[in-house]
Amino acid sequence: MSLNLQQMLPFRVCSTAGSTDAIRPFQATTRRKNREHPAADIIPKDRERSTHKTMAPILLNTMGTGNSDYIEQQEVHVKNPHLDSLEEDILYHFDLGTKTHNLPEMFGDIKFVCVGGSANRMRSFAQFMHQELGMPGDRDDIRDICAGTDRYSMYKVGPVLSISHGMGVPSISIMLHELIKLLHHAHCRDVVLFRIGTSGGVGLAPGTVVITDKAVDSFFQPQFEQVVLGKVIVRSTELNKGLAEELLSCSTEIPDLPTAIGNTMCTHDFYEGQGRLDGALCSFSTEEKLEYLRKAYEAGVRNIEMESTVFAAMCHVCGLKAAVICVTLLNRFEGDQITTPHEVLVEYQQRPQLLVSRYIKKRLGLIQ
Amino acid sequence: MSLNLQQMLPFRVCSTAGSTDAIRPFQATTRRKNREHPAADIIPKDRERSTHKTMAPILLNTMGTGNSDYIEQQEVHVKNPHLDSLEEDILYHFDLGTKTHNLPEMFGDIKFVCVGGSANRMRSFAQFMHQELGMPGDRDDIRDICAGTDRYSMYKVGPVLSISHGMGVPSISIMLHELIKLLHHAHCRDVVLFRIGTSGGVGLAPGTVVITDKAVDSFFQPQFEQVVLGKVIVRSTELNKGLAEELLSCSTEIPDLPTAIGNTMCTHDFYEGQGRLDGALCSFSTEEKLEYLRKAYEAGVRNIEMESTVFAAMCHVCGLKAAVICVTLLNRFEGDQITTPHEVLVEYQQRPQLLVSRYIKKRLGLIQ
Repeated sequence: MSLNLQQMLPFRVCSTAGSTDAIRPFQATTRRKNREHPAADIIPKDRERSTHKTMAPILLNTMGTGNSDYIEQQEVHVKNPHLDSLEEDILYHFDLGTKTHNLPEMFGDIKFVCVGGSANRMRSFAQFMHQELGMPGDRDDIRDICAGTDRYSMYKVGPVLSISHGMGVPSISIMLHELIKLLHHAHCRDVVLFRIGTSGGVGLAPGTVVITDKAVDSFFQPQFEQVVLGKVIVRSTELNKGLAEELLSCSTEIPDLPTAIGNTMCTHDFYEGQGRLDGALCSFSTEEKLEYLRKAYEAGVRNIEMESTVFAAMCHVCGLKAAVICVTLLNRFEGDQITTPHEVLVEYQQRPQLLVSRYIKKRLGLIQ
Repeated sequence: MSLNLQQMLPFRVCSTAGSTDAIRPFQATTRRKNREHPAADIIPKDRERSTHKTMAPILLNTMGTGNSDYIEQQEVHVKNPHLDSLEEDILYHFDLGTKTHNLPEMFGDIKFVCVGGSANRMRSFAQFMHQELGMPGDRDDIRDICAGTDRYSMYKVGPVLSISHGMGVPSISIMLHELIKLLHHAHCRDVVLFRIGTSGGVGLAPGTVVITDKAVDSFFQPQFEQVVLGKVIVRSTELNKGLAEELLSCSTEIPDLPTAIGNTMCTHDFYEGQGRLDGALCSFSTEEKLEYLRKAYEAGVRNIEMESTVFAAMCHVCGLKAAVICVTLLNRFEGDQITTPHEVLVEYQQRPQLLVSRYIKKRLGLIQ
């Protein structure tokens, strides 16, 4: 098989890194091709029925009504013509596979996927959702679906999947490849993805929840660069604006939940890469650090974390509605070290969970 | 404080990414500055005595006798003039700190640090070293020093520290910043670092152990690029050749341990970034994938993983003797998916551990 790279996918191929060339818009031809994908219409009858039984009516309607016009399909689509020829697909880092597990049976009713760095936090979120959705059984009995590996943890609570992704772009990207394939193999429809995490704030009080407008790189550009076969490709990091606004609206209904919409800068390093003065290596002055943070603020950056660009880029390419919601643990204009007491940090970390939980309950018709 | 970036550190500042400019050699002025570091000569008497008691005589001699001329000092040095002015240093992702923990007491006798991606594997390695070093007590009782966080796991067995680092460059880089600061605060001397991991093989039979000659990027260059305050800097990924040769020599003494020295390619993605055809996204053909792998092979690449360049670069800058030892789980010319049975993979993953254990026991004078 010989494929033309530039024709196939919604990115621009560059010969050198650092390009800020405009992103090529998502191609109608690619969308059409995937709408005709043979796997798209196969939804096991049993799962469809069980979905009808357990899900609120709102979930049976389309959720692709956001502002972004790339959400045309309700199916979760991979963008890989080779996958169909695989006899078996082993999702190695989940310890799951298409031959060893009945993925449609296990995951077919998933409508919301929440991902975050810490395994403990994502277990807590699953337990919290168990309580919020009024699920039967003991919330402490929720088992880690990926218990066979320690790479990621995964918990399912009704239509909600909660997965850890570790720290940094490469770690979340492995998880996203396997998650998107999982949702595809399970014939999931109308799935919304959330990254709920922690971050450093830029000019915001600690504890502020930031809903990401644009995920930007260290040069404040809304794009994600990746090397494929020795060539740098650039992908758009566009997120769903309608979803961000819905989340902001939800935040106003929760007391003591300071929330802002702003750009989120994604770096590949926590210390030098975020202008911290307290790493093992540091070659710049306090003034140079503050100047960089000021430039970031002027570019609309309100928080800094380490996963948002690839999360936004991969969801965008696969037509998945997605949002990034991170709480700020400190104001980087005031320091680098996280000195806030543990119990305060724990409360901060629950804030994105509270917000996403409220959104999910509204979508499920459990609250108005 | 105003510092001149280019004068301070052993890298070259570039204005655009993708540069392959030569790396500036490590500067004598920087070395001198750090030899005069006030913290360098403070070694608590108690710890020094306890080290004499418990350590084999060989460890009291210098270990900086490798081929690489940048190993001049025995102390572990940070390269950050700001650290001295910190009243407290919180190693946030380890849940340790200079005020809350007596780091010299806890870690002052560390001589070998082994790092690897998986927390379970690094606990197994600690238990294995407990047995190999004939330590007292039950090996199952070794506790996770970082139990207060789920970001990393850390186990100490006599002079050996075993730490997990998750997957990808950003995840290991956070750990390395905090590890190097920890070794510095604990006044450790003569420390050798090993990364023991898994990898995809390039033209090697599965199960082969690869000792890294050069850690190279996706363009096969022995360098690591990092963005600092919006500028791309390039660091050398030179590893200690003498250590690699000592490890190769050790491997010949262990039965059934196929071992090679070769270049290790470090990518930022497991699927597209390593030319896999089985990710959620793939835009290239089988032929294009194989052509890229052939080019990698011609450039001396024998395995592919996701952490070696930043590991080599940070150890090099800080004058730490370091080696990368990864086993190959598959031959990438033959496939992308890891289909080998679980028990065979478990045996493969023990091979780098066996090799490093033998090296450590030799250095400790426990075997000839």
